Amino acid sequence: MKFVIIGGDAAGMSAASRAKRNKPDLEVLVLEQTQDVSYSACGMPYNIADPDRSIDELVVRQARVFREKQGIDLRIGHRAGSIDCAARTVSAQDDQGKAITFDYDKLLIATGASPIMPDLPGFNRSGVLALKNLKDGRRIKEHLHAKGVKKTVIVGMGYIALEMAEALRARGIEVHMVKPRSILLPWMNRELASVVQEELEANQVHLHLGQEVTGIEQAGDGLKVVCLDMALECQMMLVAIGVKPNSELAEDARLELGLKKAIAVDKALHTSDQDVFSAGDCADTYHVVTGQKTYIPLALRANRAGWAVADNVTGQRVELPGIAGTAVFKVFDLEVARTGLNPEEAKAAGFEPVEVVITGRTRAHAHPGAGDMKVQMIGDKKSGRLLGAQIVAKEGAAHRINAPAVALHSGLTVEEFSQTDLAYAPPFGPVWDPTLTAANQLLKRLL
Amino acid sequence: MKFVIIGGDAAGMSAASRAKRNKPDLEVLVLEQTQDVSYSACGMPYNIADPDRSIDELVVRQARVFREKQGIDLRIGHRAGSIDCAARTVSAQDDQGKAITFDYDKLLIATGASPIMPDLPGFNRSGVLALKNLKDGRRIKEHLHAKGVKKTVIVGMGYIALEMAEALRARGIEVHMVKPRSILLPWMNRELASVVQEELEANQVHLHLGQEVTGIEQAGDGLKVVCLDMALECQMMLVAIGVKPNSELAEDARLELGLKKAIAVDKALHTSDQDVFSAGDCADTYHVVTGQKTYIPLALRANRAGWAVADNVTGQRVELPGIAGTAVFKVFDLEVARTGLNPEEAKAAGFEPVEVVITGRTRAHAHPGAGDMKVQMIGDKKSGRLLGAQIVAKEGAAHRINAPAVALHSGLTVEEFSQTDLAYAPPFGPVWDPTLTAANQLLKRLL
Repeated sequence: MKFVIIGGDAAGMSAASRAKRNKPDLEVLVLEQTQDVSYSACGMPYNIADPDRSIDELVVRQARVFREKQGIDLRIGHRAGSIDCAARTVSAQDDQGKAITFDYDKLLIATGASPIMPDLPGFNRSGVLALKNLKDGRRIKEHLHAKGVKKTVIVGMGYIALEMAEALRARGIEVHMVKPRSILLPWMNRELASVVQEELEANQVHLHLGQEVTGIEQAGDGLKVVCLDMALECQMMLVAIGVKPNSELAEDARLELGLKKAIAVDKALHTSDQDVFSAGDCADTYHVVTGQKTYIPLALRANRAGWAVADNVTGQRVELPGIAGTAVFKVFDLEVARTGLNPEEAKAAGFEPVEVVITGRTRAHAHPGAGDMKVQMIGDKKSGRLLGAQIVAKEGAAHRINAPAVALHSGLTVEEFSQTDLAYAPPFGPVWDPTLTAANQLLKRLL
Repeated sequence: MKFVIIGGDAAGMSAASRAKRNKPDLEVLVLEQTQDVSYSACGMPYNIADPDRSIDELVVRQARVFREKQGIDLRIGHRAGSIDCAARTVSAQDDQGKAITFDYDKLLIATGASPIMPDLPGFNRSGVLALKNLKDGRRIKEHLHAKGVKKTVIVGMGYIALEMAEALRARGIEVHMVKPRSILLPWMNRELASVVQEELEANQVHLHLGQEVTGIEQAGDGLKVVCLDMALECQMMLVAIGVKPNSELAEDARLELGLKKAIAVDKALHTSDQDVFSAGDCADTYHVVTGQKTYIPLALRANRAGWAVADNVTGQRVELPGIAGTAVFKVFDLEVARTGLNPEEAKAAGFEPVEVVITGRTRAHAHPGAGDMKVQMIGDKKSGRLLGAQIVAKEGAAHRINAPAVALHSGLTVEEFSQTDLAYAPPFGPVWDPTLTAANQLLKRLL
C-alpha cells in the first residue's frame, strides 16, 4: 500500500513518521515544495530576536534522518500541482521542474496555511515580508542584517505580530504596529487586553490602531507605509494580518471545503473522499465546546491530526474529539492565554454566556514578587457549563489555562470546576487559585 | 441561631466570614486558643528565610477586622476544653484562665493539626522546635537570631522539612536532615525523587537517610542529636516528621473518628452528630479517584470545607466531591508536584496501576533556557482511567499538575486526557506538552 503526503511540516511529517512506525512495510512518500521539513515554525520569532542564532537551529529532524533511518521517501523541492481522486494520482513538479505523477492508495493533504497578503499597491516591494516558513525566517534575518534595519512597521496585531514586535525590540529596532480596527485583540476581554496594550507601550512599541494601510511606496533606500491618516517610513515591513488555508489543490480536486475555505474533514480526518485525508493548518476541526466546526490553525492539533491520519491509514480507527481553542503567547514580560469561547462566540453558538473578570495575584499573600493576574471566565446561564477562560499575568498564565481547558473537554460545569483540587504553595499562587476565584465569582452570577 | 466555631485559622475563619456574609443576623462566635487568626501558615518557611521580614506580614486579616467589620464574636486566647453534644455546649477557658460555657445551635470543630513530636529523651529541650502556627514561626526566627545559629538539624524530609531546609540555607545556615527510612520522599517515583535529592545535595543540604534519632543531649550551649550510628551537634533542631489531627475534643465528645484519628465527616462536613461539623486539618475527606476516605491536610481543602460548612449552616445543602490529592512544593530551584494516586496507593485501592516516566523539556525545541521535566503518569489497566501524575522540573511543574488534576475530577481515561487541547508556545513547553507525551506513552502500555 502506498501512502502519499503533500506537505512536509508538522502534520505531514508526524503522519509519515507514525505511519512508518505503525507499519514498517508501508510505502510512504512525502512531497514538500520548500527545502525544509520538520521545523519549529512557532520558534521563529524567538530565533529572529537573536542575530547570533541560525534559523536552522529550528529544524527538529533532518530530511536525511527521515529518509535513511525511517525509510520515508521524502522529496523536497517537489510541488504538487493537482490531485485526481478518481485515478488516485497526484501530479507534481520535481526539483528540476519536471512533471511527475504519483499513484496513491491513501493521500494526506497537509499543505498548511499561508500569510494573507493584501492586494494593494506596493506589497510586492523588496522589504515587505511575511513570516510562515523557514525561508521567510531566513529572509527576515538576512534583511535585518543586510539593511541594518533601525525601524520596522508591522501590519496586524495578532499573536505572530506581537511576538515579532518583541523579537524586533529585543534587537533594539523601533517598532510601529498598524491595524485598521480601533481595538487591540478584539477576541479578548477589554480589561485583559488593556494589560497587553500597556505592556506593549511600556516596551516602546508604537501602536497605531484604526489606521488602514492603503499602499507602500519607495522612500529612498527604504519604504513608506501609507495609511489613510498618516505615513510611516521604515526599512522593513512585516505583514501579519492572519493566515488562510492552502486549500486550492483540494478545491481543484472538488473536495469539500468548510469554514474559511479550510478543507472539511470528519473526526477521523477524512475529506469528502474517503481515501483522502487532510490535517494541519489547511483543514478544519471540531470545537469541543460547541460541537461545531471551527478553523483555528495551531501546532498541537496539526501534530495530533497527523498521527490520527497515520493510525487510520494503517488500519486503526481513530477519531479526534477536536480542540478547545486553547492558545497562549508571550509578549515581553506578559503571558496571555485563552481557552474555549469568548462571550461573542458563545452567543453565536447558542449559549447564554455570563462572564466575570477578577484580579488575583500570581503568588500567595505576602510572598515576595507577586503580581496581578487577571482572569476572565465565562459560563452558560442555562446549563451552568464552563464555556471559556482568558488569563493575563507576568507569570503563571500559560500553564494555568490548561486546567479550564481540560474542564472544557470534560464538559464540567462552573460549579464542578470550582471544586477541583488545584495545587497550592506560596511561590506559585494564592490558596484559592485565581481560576478558582473566578469560578467562585462566576457561580454567583449563574444562580 | 448561634454558630460556634472552635479554631480560628483557615477553615474556622473561612466558615465564620462566609456564614456572616450569607446570613448577617447569624450569631457567630469563634474560640481561638492562640493570639493569631487568619494567617498564611504555608508562607512561614519563606518568611523565615528572610531575617528582615516580620512574621506578622503573614496575617491575612486582623482580628479587629473580623470583629468590627464583619461582626464576628472572635475570642482569641480562648481554649475549648470539652463539647457536650447532648446539651449543645462548649466549655472553655477564657484568656484569663476562667471557665466559661457557650451554647450552640451549630458547632464547627476546626482545631487543625499538630506536629508529631517523638516521645524520646531530650525533645523538650530549648532549641528543639516545630513549625505549625505563627507562634512557632516567631520562636524559630527569634532563636535563629538570638543564638546566631550556624548549624541546624531537621528531623523529617517531607514538604515542610524541605521548605525549611531551603529557608535555612538562604540564611547561610548549615543544614543536616535526618530520617529513619533509607529513601527520600517514599511516595514519589524513584527517578523523580532522585532529581530532588540531587537538588538538595547541590545546595549543600546534608542528607542522613536511614538514621534514627534516639535522643537529644545538651552539648555546651547547643544540642547534640544522637542517632543510632552517629551524632550531630547543632544550635537548633527542627522536628518535621508529620502532623496529627487535633481530634481529642471530638473524641472526648464521642464523635466518630476516621483515618489516622481524623474527625470523620460526610460530604456535607457533618460529623457523626448532625449539628456538629468539622473542617480543615482535623477532619478527613473523600478522595475523588478512590471514592474512599483519605487524610491529606492541606490549605485549599480547609478553606473550601470552611465555606461549605457556612453554606450548610445557613440553609443551603452543599456537598464537596473531595480532593484529588494535588500538592506542590518548591525546593530550591525545583518545582515538585503530584496529583492523584501513586502506584502503591492505586493498588491498595483495587486498581491495576500501570505507570510510565518520561523526560521532556520545559520549553520548545531550540528555545533558550529549556531544562528537563520528568513526568510520571499512572493509569488503570482495567478501565483505562487516569489515576495520578507527578512532575519535577526547574519550571512549569507547579501549574502543569492542574491539568491532570482536573482530569481526575472528571474521571477521564488516559486516552481522553491525551486528546486534550493544552496550550503551546515555545517559551512555555514543547508542542506536545510533557504531560501529553506521558499520556501518549502510557496509552501504549494500557493496550
